[in-house]
Amino acid sequence: MNREPYIAGDWGTSRLRLSLCLGECVIETRQGAGIGALREPAAEALRPLIAGWRQTHGSLPLLLCGMAGSRNGWRETPYLPCPADLRALGEAALRFEADGAPVAIAPGLSCKSRLGSPDVMRGEETQIAGALALHPSLGIGHHLLCLPGTHTKWVCLEEGRVTDFLTALTGELFALLRDGSTLTQAARAGTGGESSDARSATGDTENGFESGLEAAAALGAASLLHALFAVRSRQLIDGRSHEWALAYLSGLMIGADVRGAMPLFAARAEAVLIGDSALNELYAQALRREGMTASCLDGEQCALAGLRTLWRT
Amino acid sequence: MNREPYIAGDWGTSRLRLSLCLGECVIETRQGAGIGALREPAAEALRPLIAGWRQTHGSLPLLLCGMAGSRNGWRETPYLPCPADLRALGEAALRFEADGAPVAIAPGLSCKSRLGSPDVMRGEETQIAGALALHPSLGIGHHLLCLPGTHTKWVCLEEGRVTDFLTALTGELFALLRDGSTLTQAARAGTGGESSDARSATGDTENGFESGLEAAAALGAASLLHALFAVRSRQLIDGRSHEWALAYLSGLMIGADVRGAMPLFAARAEAVLIGDSALNELYAQALRREGMTASCLDGEQCALAGLRTLWRT
Repeated sequence: MNREPYIAGDWGTSRLRLSLCLGECVIETRQGAGIGALREPAAEALRPLIAGWRQTHGSLPLLLCGMAGSRNGWRETPYLPCPADLRALGEAALRFEADGAPVAIAPGLSCKSRLGSPDVMRGEETQIAGALALHPSLGIGHHLLCLPGTHTKWVCLEEGRVTDFLTALTGELFALLRDGSTLTQAARAGTGGESSDARSATGDTENGFESGLEAAAALGAASLLHALFAVRSRQLIDGRSHEWALAYLSGLMIGADVRGAMPLFAARAEAVLIGDSALNELYAQALRREGMTASCLDGEQCALAGLRTLWRT
Repeated sequence: MNREPYIAGDWGTSRLRLSLCLGECVIETRQGAGIGALREPAAEALRPLIAGWRQTHGSLPLLLCGMAGSRNGWRETPYLPCPADLRALGEAALRFEADGAPVAIAPGLSCKSRLGSPDVMRGEETQIAGALALHPSLGIGHHLLCLPGTHTKWVCLEEGRVTDFLTALTGELFALLRDGSTLTQAARAGTGGESSDARSATGDTENGFESGLEAAAALGAASLLHALFAVRSRQLIDGRSHEWALAYLSGLMIGADVRGAMPLFAARAEAVLIGDSALNELYAQALRREGMTASCLDGEQCALAGLRTLWRT
């Protein structure tokens, strides 16, 4: 491991998270706009954010993953097709020089998913590479990984290689339904209000999530489409609170995600969750309900460890 | 049938459609804001829209269905619990006088759905009552009805009575994903652009819908959540056009709706579609793919016929 400082950045669609690092230590962290919100070239958006660090430390190497490598990002970095050995992610990084400093952008991955469609990821491959670096035992045997988020990724890892993966729209769909649908407007507009105060005490938020998981388990052949309206009707008719309904929606969607993924990935006994700790816990709860064990890894730590593998190479 | 003129109104969340009628003839139609967009009491919003008609014809009776009877509407009209005989819908209408004219608001329906949750409708019950009035044979035996729309309703009709129904969020979810998701932003932002011009000729809009139905049929135990990302990746990787992707999304969702509903309603050989003709045709295509026959009724004609049953009583 090099002992010079460097900058590690996870540049997603909606957020940039930059860390000034020395070895495995993070010295300072800054946030910036995501690739989706940029109105100027990525290199120009980045410059003011790291100018101070460069004044102090000189031309710091810059290691990036995520949408920075997309067509709308800084420089398009081709997808690495699966199967892909993530212990050698750095070999496929796009390397160039900018403002006199070396830049490395991690490639995304592409595959043909188990549902027969093409699938892609940008950013998660670096988290997986980091998980492999932090936990080398993940490189031995078969593992089912789940990276929950806006686009949850279910990933099949065999001997350190990603054989294929599948994207679930869980987080994005949850946010769309929470913020813009009639499912949650009922309570907001007060139409479910008259009885909800009295009854919401019986259904707290945690029970809402558990009830959502139960509803997902009862779906059978029915589609999620047929279960969603209950988020509204249970406020309207059962007097459930807005908070309960949001937790129910979350449980319904995470439950449907986990229950739909299990048969596709021929249900192993354990899944490895890589993500934000609160979200990991919700998925772990859904997995336990299906008789699975879940171990949780911190997504940010994995991203940093993955970015370090670009530096080493 | 009374031979005096009257006003029939379908007042939904997003739209008011008022018709000045004489018997079964519509003399004139006007549009207004939906209940969801009102900033003033419903009665006041209505007055200027019908003032001209009243100057000409006197205090016209007003027959309303939809969200006019909701808590946020004009006057709350309690839900009629299922099983409910819709040939007697008028008996459960809320009747009062306003500005010297009689007003009738159709009640909505409530039930416990086959998925075990409460379910509700407002407006569709009047379309079903109209379908029964226009086609009395629907009142004999068992029929599976489907009213496609923002909230698609699957309705079990036995001897003229609605025993239960189930709401699918198909239309609302399609609109949310079309207008606000990353699924369709790829092409809009031009990120899928470089190859899409060349290849979109091979995948026209109609094939997109058919491909979506195919993808829904291949879902198996997987959830719709796992199939949605293909709408984006097939633009990004397969170079599909934005138009193709929207048709694919539509096929995927309508296919999932139909395939999920069939086992719940113990697949009869035929379904009766009540709705807009273009949407009816898409559902009919999905139903035919499942070996079902579909007959189509015009939703607006059914609504008017249903409102007339309020007048008669």
